[in-house]
Amino acid sequence: MTLFPDATVFRAALDALPEPDVHAIAGARARQAALTKPPGSLGRLEDIACFLAGWQGRTRPRIDRARAAVFAGNHGVAALGVSAYPAAVTAQMVANFEAGGAAINALARAAGLELTVAALDLDRPTADFTREPALSEADCLAALNAGAAIVANDLDLLVLGEMGIANSTAAAALAARSFGGSAVDWAGPGTGVDGHGLARKIAVIDAGLARHADAPHDPFEALRRLGGRETAAIAGAVLAARVRRVPVILDGFICCASVAPLAAANPAVVDHCLAGHQSAEPGHARLLARLRLDPLLALGMRLGEGSGAALAVGIVRSALAAHEGMATFAEAGVSGAE
Amino acid sequence: MTLFPDATVFRAALDALPEPDVHAIAGARARQAALTKPPGSLGRLEDIACFLAGWQGRTRPRIDRARAAVFAGNHGVAALGVSAYPAAVTAQMVANFEAGGAAINALARAAGLELTVAALDLDRPTADFTREPALSEADCLAALNAGAAIVANDLDLLVLGEMGIANSTAAAALAARSFGGSAVDWAGPGTGVDGHGLARKIAVIDAGLARHADAPHDPFEALRRLGGRETAAIAGAVLAARVRRVPVILDGFICCASVAPLAAANPAVVDHCLAGHQSAEPGHARLLARLRLDPLLALGMRLGEGSGAALAVGIVRSALAAHEGMATFAEAGVSGAE
Repeated sequence: MTLFPDATVFRAALDALPEPDVHAIAGARARQAALTKPPGSLGRLEDIACFLAGWQGRTRPRIDRARAAVFAGNHGVAALGVSAYPAAVTAQMVANFEAGGAAINALARAAGLELTVAALDLDRPTADFTREPALSEADCLAALNAGAAIVANDLDLLVLGEMGIANSTAAAALAARSFGGSAVDWAGPGTGVDGHGLARKIAVIDAGLARHADAPHDPFEALRRLGGRETAAIAGAVLAARVRRVPVILDGFICCASVAPLAAANPAVVDHCLAGHQSAEPGHARLLARLRLDPLLALGMRLGEGSGAALAVGIVRSALAAHEGMATFAEAGVSGAE
Repeated sequence: MTLFPDATVFRAALDALPEPDVHAIAGARARQAALTKPPGSLGRLEDIACFLAGWQGRTRPRIDRARAAVFAGNHGVAALGVSAYPAAVTAQMVANFEAGGAAINALARAAGLELTVAALDLDRPTADFTREPALSEADCLAALNAGAAIVANDLDLLVLGEMGIANSTAAAALAARSFGGSAVDWAGPGTGVDGHGLARKIAVIDAGLARHADAPHDPFEALRRLGGRETAAIAGAVLAARVRRVPVILDGFICCASVAPLAAANPAVVDHCLAGHQSAEPGHARLLARLRLDPLLALGMRLGEGSGAALAVGIVRSALAAHEGMATFAEAGVSGAE
């Protein structure tokens, strides 16, 4: 059973987003106020506990089952020289994920996350978006549903990441299409493209934006014309997680750009999402501001794979450990403020 | 056997600081360059792995045994109305630590840290530093050595924290004495003192600075005249950890202010330290800048107890997990940049 049988259902889901459980949030806030610490002194850890309470519908939220999902795709624009790495690296890195040797493997293990890797038709790169839509409607729907499929109903937390040579080019195009500006406002070095390569990347993005300027301004059309399979899958996973009230941690520039077309249509679509980190990719700070997300970490990371989001899981687990494990003033016999 | 039998030995240790193992750092850097990721793309996680390599003297550092140490002390200036909480809360919170109900208990468990709580003569508050030195030479030495005593030789990592009603007043005085400026430059709300209380706090700090202005400008004298037992213990622990090459994670404003007198005399004294976080206490950002430490986290926390430093341990563990667990390009058969 596919969650999004057609683009109309996808769009309808975006216009009928579930809200968090306000009673669970109020209960979590009351508990935080009673714990043995000055009010508010755990800062964002208190907010994280209440956020999870709202989406899990429990005053005392927990993380028993959490998954990191990494989606991989290949891009027609890779042939235009926009990346420092050859397109073959996408499949090589998927093999590395499957063998357990990549950063996300180590970070997911450290964070207590099960890891799901979805390689999406790597032998069928998207079309060159400077000439035609990157994906057919059917291929875009399939990718959205591949994303939705990894959102098991019993997940307490979902971490999203991606891998795809040239996908920071597609991401910059999605960001510009969604939030305005041109390629120079959103393009950056990605995995490490140099001066001439960056100029090529900017020209490719601007050509793609111009080619599709007159197409309908609709999230599905943006995802299929300028994005890739992995970016559409992330968009599908975020929306499916919202439908199922599973809280999400977003990763860096490409992951956030995947959600940009949805947020341009309905800014509340990321209300169940935390931004795991702010990456070193220059456009990410601007993208987070447009998504109204305040990143948990800013450690100069720029790897993708869900690495920054997985790293942030430790913060979230600690927030819940304090929320669950601390004594109240009454339990501990500690005096309050005078 | 005490590490610091007198103030002269303490000062001599500060002038003869061990350096990190440059060969271990170079080996760790070389490993990072070979791992399956674009060079530098794990950002500060790479630096953390190399930092630990240097202080542990191992190309592949590890955290088998890590300890959080929380020092508690009481302060004569608490009687002057500088805190939102009564002085009795120090002992009540120590009981809470011992019963396992405080934030640091939950966060230390989440981070895999053993927790040591050292309550330092809570029934003998320091003297009122606006009238006389807070501590006698003997009491200050005892506190320095209490700090040094918790630095077991086989620790892979040490997290430092504190508890003491009114100790943000002492901390602001230590910061001003060490780095210049007056009370308004360093005083903040602490656990939540209000407008009139903050004005009293500022007046008390300025009175203390004036009272001891003509005393010798020496780390030991600063610690004993304006600090408390717990701040001296943190200073002793940081220096003992350096002697034993144990890497340290510092906590917030009070923890960092405890090291300020040492850093004013020898800025290299914090080379084996990471700043776990930047707290919400306004003076902490300025203090971190003077210590030349870039905080790992900035989550609006202002609790003390070592809470922000303990939270940062998850970042450090993840950095080592990636350093240890990732495959190299050669092992994984992944192509490098073109």
